[in-house]
Amino acid sequence: VIGLGLMGASLCMDLKQKQLCREVRGVARRTQTVLDAFFAEAVDLATNDPHTGVLGADTLGDIGPYLWPGTLVMDMGSTKTEICAALAQLPEAVQPIGGHPMCGKETAGFEAAECGLYRNATWVLSPLARTAPESVALAAELVTAVEARPVVLEAARHDRLVASISHLPYLLASALTAAVAEVGVDDPQIWELAAGGFRDTSRVAASDTQMFLDILATNRPAVLAAIDRFDRHLDQLRSLVERSAEPELRQHLAASRQARSRWKPRQ
Amino acid sequence: VIGLGLMGASLCMDLKQKQLCREVRGVARRTQTVLDAFFAEAVDLATNDPHTGVLGADTLGDIGPYLWPGTLVMDMGSTKTEICAALAQLPEAVQPIGGHPMCGKETAGFEAAECGLYRNATWVLSPLARTAPESVALAAELVTAVEARPVVLEAARHDRLVASISHLPYLLASALTAAVAEVGVDDPQIWELAAGGFRDTSRVAASDTQMFLDILATNRPAVLAAIDRFDRHLDQLRSLVERSAEPELRQHLAASRQARSRWKPRQ
Repeated sequence: VIGLGLMGASLCMDLKQKQLCREVRGVARRTQTVLDAFFAEAVDLATNDPHTGVLGADTLGDIGPYLWPGTLVMDMGSTKTEICAALAQLPEAVQPIGGHPMCGKETAGFEAAECGLYRNATWVLSPLARTAPESVALAAELVTAVEARPVVLEAARHDRLVASISHLPYLLASALTAAVAEVGVDDPQIWELAAGGFRDTSRVAASDTQMFLDILATNRPAVLAAIDRFDRHLDQLRSLVERSAEPELRQHLAASRQARSRWKPRQ
Repeated sequence: VIGLGLMGASLCMDLKQKQLCREVRGVARRTQTVLDAFFAEAVDLATNDPHTGVLGADTLGDIGPYLWPGTLVMDMGSTKTEICAALAQLPEAVQPIGGHPMCGKETAGFEAAECGLYRNATWVLSPLARTAPESVALAAELVTAVEARPVVLEAARHDRLVASISHLPYLLASALTAAVAEVGVDDPQIWELAAGGFRDTSRVAASDTQMFLDILATNRPAVLAAIDRFDRHLDQLRSLVERSAEPELRQHLAASRQARSRWKPRQ
């Protein structure tokens, strides 16, 4: 497992604790994380050695030469189109697949990792054209072993859908927090009045900024389309409120209420 | 207590259980609720009798003649300007005060009521010009007795602030749900991928529609201003994403992240 932050280290912990692998090797950039992971027994072998592991491997091209033929390579990033294009550049003998475990926390890093992070989460698998069915099955086996639910989805379709249900909510939470902070400059008591509605609607604004910068940079067209779709709906509500068009407003709000009540979160 | 829905009945339950009053009387419109409240021992006396209680009292004007001089009358509505104007029409001898306990649930009605609903919640008190200091103190005593935290705030200021931290988040959640449902028409798998980010950001879209229609109708100018302020922030983020202006985008997202992380919810 390359990268021992929240996602990578949580995966190592599950693999170790459930004794799912002969050996779990973890590669981290920072020596402190290598030590942390080893002493926490999150891995069997931790390293930042460029020969044992792949120190400084910023691109998949750097790790390609180290991989044995037939090796399954799966990433755990939040967008899939760009990374699947990069995975396609791996040596022919390697078996690449895109992966996206759909769970997380606001806190990042090895310290935040825990066993069971993936339990009941949806874990998207995006095979490349060349990915063998046996490799997809192996990836699904890994996902199932940590109690997540594999969903095979083409990369572009994944990116289009998560733009609406993950990247857009983040931007809304961020803009909402900025709007409340703007009011708070003149009237700081707004922070005292804020309760459950603001708490939940704004929660993801506290997510890791760098992670979302990467996500937004690698999913720009789908994110812009999702913002524009949202804007049309908000503009419509705004106009109905302004015109006091209560029957039509009731219809829209009740439809959303019904859609939201019908949907049952998995986690 | 007039109205034995979530808020009124929860208040009765606290007053009864903590033995804070000599007698707790509840007035409900529906006979079933009268019976429910009585057999649940939420009140000492439950009624829909127009002489004992105030059946069909849609306006404060209807209850005015029944009130003894010096009686404290507090409402529990979510907006304060309009109701405080109505409270001002009560007979001179009555002591009116606006009230807004800032907590709730998506579920409404007597069935959803519970002891302890108000614990740690902020409870705004909006006195009228004529409200005596002793009446404000009595209202604050009641609020403190059910373990809520009284905050005295002028009605218009209350409405301006809650437009941003409560009414706006509701409209955002509703528009987000509508946008996701629109995508879901062509690709229902979006509901399967939706995880924690969507869950929390959209939660309040499932709130009681009628309650929010009333809120939006009685706080229109402040709600429209809050939407417009939010729109400016979202437009700015959209433009930065579109122009790939990463340093500036990082600055905005990091500022919201910091503001959201600094704020600690009370409940």
